[in-house]
Amino acid sequence: MKSVEPQLKLQKERGSDLTVFSPRASGMAHHVGTEEVGQQWARVSNDLIHRICTLLPDNFAPVGQLPQFPGAPIERSIPELERLVKELGFVGVNLNPDPSGGYWKSPPLTDRYWYPIYEKLVELEVPAMIHVTSSCNPAVHHTGAHYLNGDTTAFMQLLQGDLFKDFPGLKFVIPHGGGAVPFHWGRYRGLAQDMKKPPLGEHLLGNVFFDTCVYHYPGIELMTKVVPVDNMLFASEMLGAVKGIDPETGFHFDDTKRYVDQVKALSDGDRHKIFEGNARRVYPRLDRRLAQRGKPARK
Amino acid sequence: MKSVEPQLKLQKERGSDLTVFSPRASGMAHHVGTEEVGQQWARVSNDLIHRICTLLPDNFAPVGQLPQFPGAPIERSIPELERLVKELGFVGVNLNPDPSGGYWKSPPLTDRYWYPIYEKLVELEVPAMIHVTSSCNPAVHHTGAHYLNGDTTAFMQLLQGDLFKDFPGLKFVIPHGGGAVPFHWGRYRGLAQDMKKPPLGEHLLGNVFFDTCVYHYPGIELMTKVVPVDNMLFASEMLGAVKGIDPETGFHFDDTKRYVDQVKALSDGDRHKIFEGNARRVYPRLDRRLAQRGKPARK
Repeated sequence: MKSVEPQLKLQKERGSDLTVFSPRASGMAHHVGTEEVGQQWARVSNDLIHRICTLLPDNFAPVGQLPQFPGAPIERSIPELERLVKELGFVGVNLNPDPSGGYWKSPPLTDRYWYPIYEKLVELEVPAMIHVTSSCNPAVHHTGAHYLNGDTTAFMQLLQGDLFKDFPGLKFVIPHGGGAVPFHWGRYRGLAQDMKKPPLGEHLLGNVFFDTCVYHYPGIELMTKVVPVDNMLFASEMLGAVKGIDPETGFHFDDTKRYVDQVKALSDGDRHKIFEGNARRVYPRLDRRLAQRGKPARK
Repeated sequence: MKSVEPQLKLQKERGSDLTVFSPRASGMAHHVGTEEVGQQWARVSNDLIHRICTLLPDNFAPVGQLPQFPGAPIERSIPELERLVKELGFVGVNLNPDPSGGYWKSPPLTDRYWYPIYEKLVELEVPAMIHVTSSCNPAVHHTGAHYLNGDTTAFMQLLQGDLFKDFPGLKFVIPHGGGAVPFHWGRYRGLAQDMKKPPLGEHLLGNVFFDTCVYHYPGIELMTKVVPVDNMLFASEMLGAVKGIDPETGFHFDDTKRYVDQVKALSDGDRHKIFEGNARRVYPRLDRRLAQRGKPARK
């Protein structure tokens, strides 16, 4: 319990109640060691998450990491996925589009290489957060470049393909507000049009969601102008990439609730979607877990 | 002349006069062929730019591509750089931070590998646009992912290092509005602070500039809120990554002058800086070329 005291303190201070809690993305480190070591590492990391979420079920809901090894068949991630969801009650998992750690050696997310895991995700009703791990490429800093590039790259892979025709029930969450995507929303609308794809809303936004880990008000404000409110999920990455206090505001950079609260164009209903409603829709097992604990969804 | 008729038509229609004209970034293709082929390709591409800018000196000013080959010493790019500037009157060049075409196999821009070209750029008073070329990585789409990732990665490399202590006169332009950078301006301010670097203004913004190739109004509006006006250079990438008409506005996505014109918070003086003044400061040889043609800088 002592290990999560900082998180519990920040929940209280910043006004959140429940954290969807996973192993640190940077610690997944799929490129480190052997495939067997990676299998064990995923298991012990997930067991620790399970322990915290069992001890503090009102504060934390569990999301897992998958064992993925560069070049290994994705089928080998399935036993751990099934254990997490069926035995341990996990409500989601992280899926790393680049287990090579910054060299992008895997096929795009639309490739049939990934289909076995998608079939299982749909069957189990769990969404995947598309999140890279640390970078072993000296040109690419992990939290300042690789994370955001991972988000941008994944979104463009999905735009190029037609994955959700094959998996209409599959749900992806892209972190860090979608990397470069909302800032270049016009570019992506234009690329989709040039490629004869349907508009983004129809093509991707029934299946792709963005979190709000964007650490200044103008970024969150932009997001709310271009991304439909149904596609934004509150997140604050605490404790994560940026730990300091913004001298321009006197608050922590990653205290993102403040930014969402400040956007005047959002209604109370919009804010409820961003803070809770959308997450309960995208993570149906989270919704059921909460309902079982006496917290049904708002009608 | 016929080959640039589309550009001349768009200059008139959209209200620009002079285009800083380089070979297409995607066509640099540094990863294709042998090093010798790359040397020849840079030369013929640059000669074609020179020809256009000589025929139409009031419409086009020349910027070149460098021969860069994955793994080759950067010194081998210097003879072409010298030819371009000293013999052909070029005012700038593109520098590719990833000649491997999407696999990021070069050292970061702050590494001493790059120092010989920086010494020459400073000596010749030409800025470098930091621009990747096409991607040969099937996971990474060139205009929808690799370009923006290149911008984000380069900015983070510069943030991590102290390059401009060694080269206070070196100037870099980062295209596409800086990739993900303005959307994540708070993240970068926070990362710099956590890394005990000076604030971004002091650390990087005397040397790093961003263009306005962002294809919707909310993106340009965000940029003007976080990036100092002295660091924004007008650009429209015509004809470039996105060629269509935005159904939401009825105008071309890449008609970026309209977006800059719409930002009410900008004064006429600010707009003059973005459209002309900053470019004349960052590209001193462009300023002199214009002055010689009877167009001195505004006092």
